[in-house]
Amino acid sequence: MLVPETPALTRIRLDVAYRGTDFAGWARQPELRTVQGELEAALDKVLRASARGLAAPQVTVAGRTDAGVHARGQVVHVDIDLDGWRSLPGRSDRPESEALLDRLAGVLGDDIVVFAATIAPSGFDARFSALSRTYKYRIADRYAARDPLRADWTLWHRGELDEAAMNEAAQEVTGLRDFAAFCKPRPGATTIRQLQQFEWQRPQSGPDAGLVVATITSDAFCHNMVRALVGSSILIGQGKRPADWLAAVLASKDRANAGAVIAARGLTLEAVAYPEDELLAQRAQAIRAQRMDEEIRP
Amino acid sequence: MLVPETPALTRIRLDVAYRGTDFAGWARQPELRTVQGELEAALDKVLRASARGLAAPQVTVAGRTDAGVHARGQVVHVDIDLDGWRSLPGRSDRPESEALLDRLAGVLGDDIVVFAATIAPSGFDARFSALSRTYKYRIADRYAARDPLRADWTLWHRGELDEAAMNEAAQEVTGLRDFAAFCKPRPGATTIRQLQQFEWQRPQSGPDAGLVVATITSDAFCHNMVRALVGSSILIGQGKRPADWLAAVLASKDRANAGAVIAARGLTLEAVAYPEDELLAQRAQAIRAQRMDEEIRP
Repeated sequence: MLVPETPALTRIRLDVAYRGTDFAGWARQPELRTVQGELEAALDKVLRASARGLAAPQVTVAGRTDAGVHARGQVVHVDIDLDGWRSLPGRSDRPESEALLDRLAGVLGDDIVVFAATIAPSGFDARFSALSRTYKYRIADRYAARDPLRADWTLWHRGELDEAAMNEAAQEVTGLRDFAAFCKPRPGATTIRQLQQFEWQRPQSGPDAGLVVATITSDAFCHNMVRALVGSSILIGQGKRPADWLAAVLASKDRANAGAVIAARGLTLEAVAYPEDELLAQRAQAIRAQRMDEEIRP
Repeated sequence: MLVPETPALTRIRLDVAYRGTDFAGWARQPELRTVQGELEAALDKVLRASARGLAAPQVTVAGRTDAGVHARGQVVHVDIDLDGWRSLPGRSDRPESEALLDRLAGVLGDDIVVFAATIAPSGFDARFSALSRTYKYRIADRYAARDPLRADWTLWHRGELDEAAMNEAAQEVTGLRDFAAFCKPRPGATTIRQLQQFEWQRPQSGPDAGLVVATITSDAFCHNMVRALVGSSILIGQGKRPADWLAAVLASKDRANAGAVIAARGLTLEAVAYPEDELLAQRAQAIRAQRMDEEIRP
């Protein structure tokens, strides 16, 4: 029996966007349509890996998202047999990146787009090199802001919210904190996170004009953390809790005190930040040691 | 047999938005899900018209849209028994407009929103008082601009378009013209329209950043006119036709010379303009006489 030679692998960074509505979340699961499952199947088909007796491509993601959560700035890496792909018959002389995007677009549905593909710099790891993830949560709390063309990714809330009170509360929970009160507990995993930014705004112009929007950046998130913070913020926006209540819940470290986890619908992973190329490997090494066993999804 | 007394009717203006994807167009049709059908059924339910033996509400629309075409700024009017509705048992003391929006939202799906309801000024007719309709057509011609969260209402086009050439061509066909070359012919109907604005742009910021976007305003449109103009523009954007070709097609008045009618997906009715209140009736009278038998949908 002939064993195919193991090819040298090249790490590719893919920038990915998806509408989470029709996905059962990020992580591959048998029988379910997931983003990872669709993306890996598309890569395998386009790269003809299984067809050539090679291992099917496996992707590593910056921010695992739950069912119904969207992404505009998701980042993954995948190690592929680039040389082998280059030499496949039928390859045009177009740039590889362009050819890869075209072929993936031909295989993937309209709710998932690979919009950039580049050879990753040395030391790059989509998950462990990341400095931070930024999410937005969008709410339409007035009929005039309910846009059916944006309904998939905006929560429709009945009754106006006091975004100034929500923002005041948010400012009080930023920084290096123990977010146990907003985390789904997981044995052995820390709930300490560096919440770099948590703001509520009602932009008057731009793509989110008229909506109430949270921008939330952290080095990492524990499971359900963003949606628990937003659910609790809404109670403040409704006037059911005072602005200083969020900090009090945080200080209690008791999940029973927080508001409900809000619907996935309004949540979008907007961006993942990485350090300069020369610091990628160092960052990955430090984070891998620290976080190997932790959740990094919100 | 008791015949219910015919109540005095009050004309209501409704501002409506919808995602056209899952509608078989505007106009009510048996067995099909249409915007008019859904909206009239919702009004009948909320106003309890049929239930009270009154005529079911019928709406008049500013811009009849085809299957798959979206709207953010659609306007309709409907004549309702406002006094009777006011006196229904169970009516709260909230403002009627707010109550109507709440109840319609409770009945309609997420892909159609009535976002404003007001008592129409005297002489108002959603269709015949309108001065102009403005549509936008959105195209993503680069992978970086393909956003799955906006996919429903943006055409994904493979290969970059020359928006400057498209815009140059568009400028040459504005004004009072015979658009026979871009109209589905209809016996007895004029094809002369006042095309007030036709521009192609690639905005660098705002909600359409990175997309190629047509803004098209006319007093009225004949059937398929916007989509025929856009389909022809794309040939120029691809470099398959010179910029002066659009004006030549227009001058030929021959539909066989134009490009294909483009997909509905990228087309959205953005706004309808009306004159000052005191001119509404006069405008309606003039247009009704002139256009009674004409199409006003693109």
